[in-house]
Amino acid sequence: MEKTLWKHIQTVRELSPLVHNITNYVVMNSTANALLAIGASPVMAHAKAEVKDMTTIANVLLINMGTLDEYWSESMLIAAETAHLLNKPWVLDPVGAGATPYRNQIIQKLLQYRPTIIRGNASEILAIAKSNAPATKGVDSIASSMDAVQAARNLVGQYGSVVCISGETDIIVDQKNQTLLLKNGHPMMTKVTGLGCTASALTAAFAAVIEDKTEATVAAMALLGIAGELSEKQSHGPGTLQMNIIDKLYAMTDVEFAEQLNVSRA
Amino acid sequence: MEKTLWKHIQTVRELSPLVHNITNYVVMNSTANALLAIGASPVMAHAKAEVKDMTTIANVLLINMGTLDEYWSESMLIAAETAHLLNKPWVLDPVGAGATPYRNQIIQKLLQYRPTIIRGNASEILAIAKSNAPATKGVDSIASSMDAVQAARNLVGQYGSVVCISGETDIIVDQKNQTLLLKNGHPMMTKVTGLGCTASALTAAFAAVIEDKTEATVAAMALLGIAGELSEKQSHGPGTLQMNIIDKLYAMTDVEFAEQLNVSRA
Amino acid sequence: MEKTLWKHIQTVRELSPLVHNITNYVVMNSTANALLAIGASPVMAHAKAEVKDMTTIANVLLINMGTLDEYWSESMLIAAETAHLLNKPWVLDPVGAGATPYRNQIIQKLLQYRPTIIRGNASEILAIAKSNAPATKGVDSIASSMDAVQAARNLVGQYGSVVCISGETDIIVDQKNQTLLLKNGHPMMTKVTGLGCTASALTAAFAAVIEDKTEATVAAMALLGIAGELSEKQSHGPGTLQMNIIDKLYAMTDVEFAEQLNVSRA
Repeated sequence: MEKTLWKHIQTVRELSPLVHNITNYVVMNSTANALLAIGASPVMAHAKAEVKDMTTIANVLLINMGTLDEYWSESMLIAAETAHLLNKPWVLDPVGAGATPYRNQIIQKLLQYRPTIIRGNASEILAIAKSNAPATKGVDSIASSMDAVQAARNLVGQYGSVVCISGETDIIVDQKNQTLLLKNGHPMMTKVTGLGCTASALTAAFAAVIEDKTEATVAAMALLGIAGELSEKQSHGPGTLQMNIIDKLYAMTDVEFAEQLNVSRA
Repeated sequence: MEKTLWKHIQTVRELSPLVHNITNYVVMNSTANALLAIGASPVMAHAKAEVKDMTTIANVLLINMGTLDEYWSESMLIAAETAHLLNKPWVLDPVGAGATPYRNQIIQKLLQYRPTIIRGNASEILAIAKSNAPATKGVDSIASSMDAVQAARNLVGQYGSVVCISGETDIIVDQKNQTLLLKNGHPMMTKVTGLGCTASALTAAFAAVIEDKTEATVAAMALLGIAGELSEKQSHGPGTLQMNIIDKLYAMTDVEFAEQLNVSRA
Repeated sequence: MEKTLWKHIQTVRELSPLVHNITNYVVMNSTANALLAIGASPVMAHAKAEVKDMTTIANVLLINMGTLDEYWSESMLIAAETAHLLNKPWVLDPVGAGATPYRNQIIQKLLQYRPTIIRGNASEILAIAKSNAPATKGVDSIASSMDAVQAARNLVGQYGSVVCISGETDIIVDQKNQTLLLKNGHPMMTKVTGLGCTASALTAAFAAVIEDKTEATVAAMALLGIAGELSEKQSHGPGTLQMNIIDKLYAMTDVEFAEQLNVSRA
């Protein structure tokens, strides 16, 4: 699988997909930099007057609900509907799902447009699957990834999405009944804001140009996880880590990738 | 006092308070990273449809007026009212007070909800106390901290807040008639955008879990100031400084803190 | 010309102009840091209730359309009109021009207020001049700078602006019929999000205090380009580059500037 995943990384670098991001204010800069670092081309646009046009131009859509409000949620719905009608891949990052009734309500509306891929932490996946989720603590997960696997399978069945539960071990489930486990990354990554959001954006870039959306998800998550663990060795804390991850996304070699990759089937 | 302040820093690291931030676009990323670095858990949310719920879930509220507009100011008022009604601590950062009549008007409305702590530079504190303030120059202070002490005392009397005037010397005044002087920090910190905003956010995290709000304020301001002066030694300019401060907030030791702390009573 | 340009850099450091930015969410932090690094004083404000007041206080206005929407475009128009009526210099960065009809429509309205300086990539300059532009790919340019020179000359004639087409070679054209070529910078700068936006903001700072707006533009573009090429030598990728550029903007010496400057007349 290493060779296939690395080929996908090269494909993104070569084809430079245009990723339309409707994402939160906290991570716009770091998301754009991460997308540029892997060779993709980011655009951020949310105006109701142009969001349909932008999704149409782009190769893929990312919707991240982090700092949503009434205006932005309308834009998200227009964009998701556009992607759905055009059969264009789109990725949903349900940030903070379960935290407030409003957030849950918008997520349910977005799900109707059948996201190609859903990436969230365990609490979020549990919350959107309406399972018996422990209450979310803000935007950080308090549930473990394993708790959320059944919830993820329900989402796969209901919406046809590939679902990625990110955490210490990332778990990817899909319609072909595969369950992939990815054990890359480093705990200090949870101290850098928005690396989950970055993961979703990178996943979108891969989904734009890789036919197999499960492989696209694994490739993106592996690339970021490996960038994180390699960067941590050269970092003195989360400040240097945030910056070094961008460098490593840009400069990672096939040898580094192959040496670090830790993926398996459940 | 060193030991008490260090204990407070450890308390934040252990209890990881959930900080609800309604803050400006410029600093959302750096604020979230600073909060994560000290062990707190940040959430940014401003939708009128969920802001009351989010303040209710959180342990503390931070309101920073930097890039306010009509929608955001309504959200700020809902959140401040919620915190006030729930007796939940909340911190006001009156960014750019005095710059425009609109900004002043919103600040006066927010003050009615009696912020637990107000942190601003001298120009801002003078402006919100309606003293004879020199005109603000954008968001940077042109008044000295000492000029603003009487204005701060007026605010303490009127709203019961702890007031922190940040500057070369930070001055903290409170209802117990204490005046604390903190001489940590480094001039290069004024060349990094939003470190004042970071100071307010860290103060909120401390106020969430420390009973004595004056000590909470001093601990937060001292932690950031010391992180700044230690980081500056390893930095080549404000770019590296911004990143190194995050690392130092994350990794500061009790020895470093005790060696650098420069607090006194006036 | 080296000595004149360096004198302009010193003038910005000494006079610290207040730059009113209405810019996009992606770059607010990096723009503010770049402005602080060169000695300017940034303020970000967009509320319709205060935007006129803020433009009036400021020494210069920057309008960057990156993440515009209906509200923000109204604010931009109010601010541009205010600057125009007050004969205050203002800079337009037409991010993503040509990408959507909505974006093009707002740009045409803004142009009526005769921007002092327009800075964009070749695709954007072609798009706003309504030339036969190749379709924009999101916010990145796919046209070369040379293609856009006639379009730039048309804009100069129509609106009286200095026009800067940024790219591998930056081309600056003006009403005095000068065409200046600037060959500073490094290709890795295109992998850092928003350095074009930074270029426009720095140009605004120079335009605030330098009478000759062509020289102001060249000085700003040269400063950033040289900071980029010097920083790249110490960077391992776009993450460290973003940070090192801020350091270099802050600490650049006259010797470094003179050694690297590569400006000529066409």
